[in-house]
Amino acid sequence: MEKNIPYKTYLDENEMPKAWYNVRADMKNKPAPLLDPQTHEPMTAEQLSAVFCRELVEQELNDTDPFIPIPQEIIEFYKMYRPSPLVRAYCLEKALDTPAKIYYKFEGNNTSGSHKLNSAIVQAYYAKKQGLNGVTTETGAGQWGTALSMACAYFGLDCKVFMVKVSYEQKPFRREVMRTYGASVTPSPSETTNVGRKILAEHPGTTGSLGCAISEAVEVAVGTEGYRYVLGSVLNQVLLHQSVIGLETKTAFEKIGEKPDIIIGCAGGGSNLGGLISPFMGEKLRGENDYRFIAVEPASCPSLTRGRYAYDFCDTGMVCPLAKMYTLGSGFIPSANHAGGLRYHGMSSTLSQLYDDKLMEAVSVEQTKVFEAAQQFARIEGILPAPESSHAIRVAIDEALKCKETGEEKTILFGLTGTGYFDMVAYQKFNDGEMTDYIPTDEDLAKGFAGLPKM
Amino acid sequence: MEKNIPYKTYLDENEMPKAWYNVRADMKNKPAPLLDPQTHEPMTAEQLSAVFCRELVEQELNDTDPFIPIPQEIIEFYKMYRPSPLVRAYCLEKALDTPAKIYYKFEGNNTSGSHKLNSAIVQAYYAKKQGLNGVTTETGAGQWGTALSMACAYFGLDCKVFMVKVSYEQKPFRREVMRTYGASVTPSPSETTNVGRKILAEHPGTTGSLGCAISEAVEVAVGTEGYRYVLGSVLNQVLLHQSVIGLETKTAFEKIGEKPDIIIGCAGGGSNLGGLISPFMGEKLRGENDYRFIAVEPASCPSLTRGRYAYDFCDTGMVCPLAKMYTLGSGFIPSANHAGGLRYHGMSSTLSQLYDDKLMEAVSVEQTKVFEAAQQFARIEGILPAPESSHAIRVAIDEALKCKETGEEKTILFGLTGTGYFDMVAYQKFNDGEMTDYIPTDEDLAKGFAGLPKM
Repeated sequence: MEKNIPYKTYLDENEMPKAWYNVRADMKNKPAPLLDPQTHEPMTAEQLSAVFCRELVEQELNDTDPFIPIPQEIIEFYKMYRPSPLVRAYCLEKALDTPAKIYYKFEGNNTSGSHKLNSAIVQAYYAKKQGLNGVTTETGAGQWGTALSMACAYFGLDCKVFMVKVSYEQKPFRREVMRTYGASVTPSPSETTNVGRKILAEHPGTTGSLGCAISEAVEVAVGTEGYRYVLGSVLNQVLLHQSVIGLETKTAFEKIGEKPDIIIGCAGGGSNLGGLISPFMGEKLRGENDYRFIAVEPASCPSLTRGRYAYDFCDTGMVCPLAKMYTLGSGFIPSANHAGGLRYHGMSSTLSQLYDDKLMEAVSVEQTKVFEAAQQFARIEGILPAPESSHAIRVAIDEALKCKETGEEKTILFGLTGTGYFDMVAYQKFNDGEMTDYIPTDEDLAKGFAGLPKM
Repeated sequence: MEKNIPYKTYLDENEMPKAWYNVRADMKNKPAPLLDPQTHEPMTAEQLSAVFCRELVEQELNDTDPFIPIPQEIIEFYKMYRPSPLVRAYCLEKALDTPAKIYYKFEGNNTSGSHKLNSAIVQAYYAKKQGLNGVTTETGAGQWGTALSMACAYFGLDCKVFMVKVSYEQKPFRREVMRTYGASVTPSPSETTNVGRKILAEHPGTTGSLGCAISEAVEVAVGTEGYRYVLGSVLNQVLLHQSVIGLETKTAFEKIGEKPDIIIGCAGGGSNLGGLISPFMGEKLRGENDYRFIAVEPASCPSLTRGRYAYDFCDTGMVCPLAKMYTLGSGFIPSANHAGGLRYHGMSSTLSQLYDDKLMEAVSVEQTKVFEAAQQFARIEGILPAPESSHAIRVAIDEALKCKETGEEKTILFGLTGTGYFDMVAYQKFNDGEMTDYIPTDEDLAKGFAGLPKM
């Protein structure tokens, strides 16, 4: 008998997660530690506490406790915008005429427009708890900066955002959302920091990069009394906070009596993918269940599929700790025609280790194919997806079409991380037929690899 | 014992409305009929069918049946983006330190960003069912055009949108959303219609108005084989479709064992307010329950609070039927500093009659006060509201503050019709301290009234 599965499954408040799941606890090969960029020794908690909030440092270094309780204040805040729905994409299935069942976990129904709020609110909470005055951060496309602005407004913290200059200019509305939440937004590189002035002197016409904005934000955090730096992806702590996505998803699947075979997510720094897959990955690591995990990245910024697994700088200014990760080199910047996010040169250490251990697959996709999927999805499922999220949509559709060929009734889950309301410049390019693809040559990549630190 | 009311209440699929509620059936004084602009005789179904889809004409004229079954296809589509949540604004209550309980029904969690999709999908459905090729419409701020584009994409209908020129230029991203859904978007007034050419000849520098865009859309619909015109507000049929908002809200309140005392909504053409209040108004009309209803309109476009209750043209080109409504005259255009929507010169005939019968109150608010409420709400409740919706927020906050003074524990419900992601130009003005207010003088209004038709 066919089960009657609703389009959308929401958890009740009492079904919501009470603890985050720390996938590192179940990993046999732990992610490599952060290293001091001078001495190449593992960073101590004390060293990290100059940059990050104390309790976040503990979470960053904790690779043994599988569950970390979620503070009550965060559970309360979650109730304002969570749970996010697990959606059965009936209309997409029908349009594709596939025997596959397609589900997506939709994280876009909050003003930040993405899953980024899940970690922003936690980092702001610990900053407030520590008695800080404010935090600094960088933002590229602007989702993280928006999320952090919202979180800081909620806790009454000051929020200084360094926004990659090209985004600052092309996305004035993102900037205004952050200002509406009380944040100050500075285009990066700027004249307000040493590292910004240095980069501007060396590259006068630069439109900025995430790595450069990170350097500026860290400099201001370390040099200002009562401030710390917060980062929206890549770090272990961020994947921990994002595990709320996967935990909710897992409970929702249990509620409807289903189980995914394939789990797909887009991967920039890895926070959404890491959060979505972590409890499922835990089952795989413990031998309880098997799943296929697929990380999807842009062909123009292919850190997993074409990068090196090596220690690298997290930022352009080389002021941050070194992280072992799949990387294209901290000097790598995607070509100018790259429209969406997912432009970070490296990948979360946790995901890098899982990928290196062959517990997860990765594919890269070209952006015109991504926007084709985005448009198709928008028209069929009614949600205008973020370009980032559309990478996952592309591969979910491809997998569903494979099922159509083979007749397999697989259950496909993907993370729909956010909405594309602030990405209409990219959509306009696509609508006008002016979007192009670019795949870096081996020579392009070699330049990035040449900047890897000598270890 | 304090009840444990969740932040958000969602209905299950089987709790969703199966029929729309037609408040006219319970009204003692029915809304006045549409009149032929030439003969001043009531429009017949046949006459209306030249402009509107057949089944929509039936709904337009039906003031006797209290319930109209929702077609199964619409019930299926609803599942994609409904139910919308009924949210308890715990954080706002706490911030205001009020004994009042504040609830809002949030209609912004779909790509059109507002409640407009509720009627767009129904009108597109009947157009498809009638075998039409496409529909035409106008849009101002762009929410309705976006909603209709989504609906037409779903049913495979062509969609021609006339967008008020000033919005077309100031909101290029709205335009791109519509294009992504396959709609064609023409700035109005345009050279593509007789009425557009006439208006351009008379007012060469005009940036357009809703009334003018309506005239163009109607001309194209009537003159193109297989096309009809659809309208996103004002009409009885639209209020009928929007009753899904109120029906869901009422069921959700019953589910949590609560009942609102005051129900507040912003009012432009009246579709959201009419939809939200209708089942509650039905109880009041039948003497089963009492509620206070408050319509909130901009001080710069005060059709209820300062308009005349009279027959008027619905459009600038005077091609549409005459409607009896509270109106400022079809020539009235809000001053240039008016930032948000709610700029239509008239008000739904149904709401006009209810207001005239003193079954509903109305207040007008100035836009700087509206944006103060919007910013406060955004920071506390985490949702960036549309300027339109923020009119209701303003009055909800004011009512909650009155409760603080009197100590009354009233339950306040307001309609949060949508999100403000495409209204950041207005927010920027507010953030920069450059937003101003304008209240039309009696002389300004007299000019509009002078254009009322002689009956």
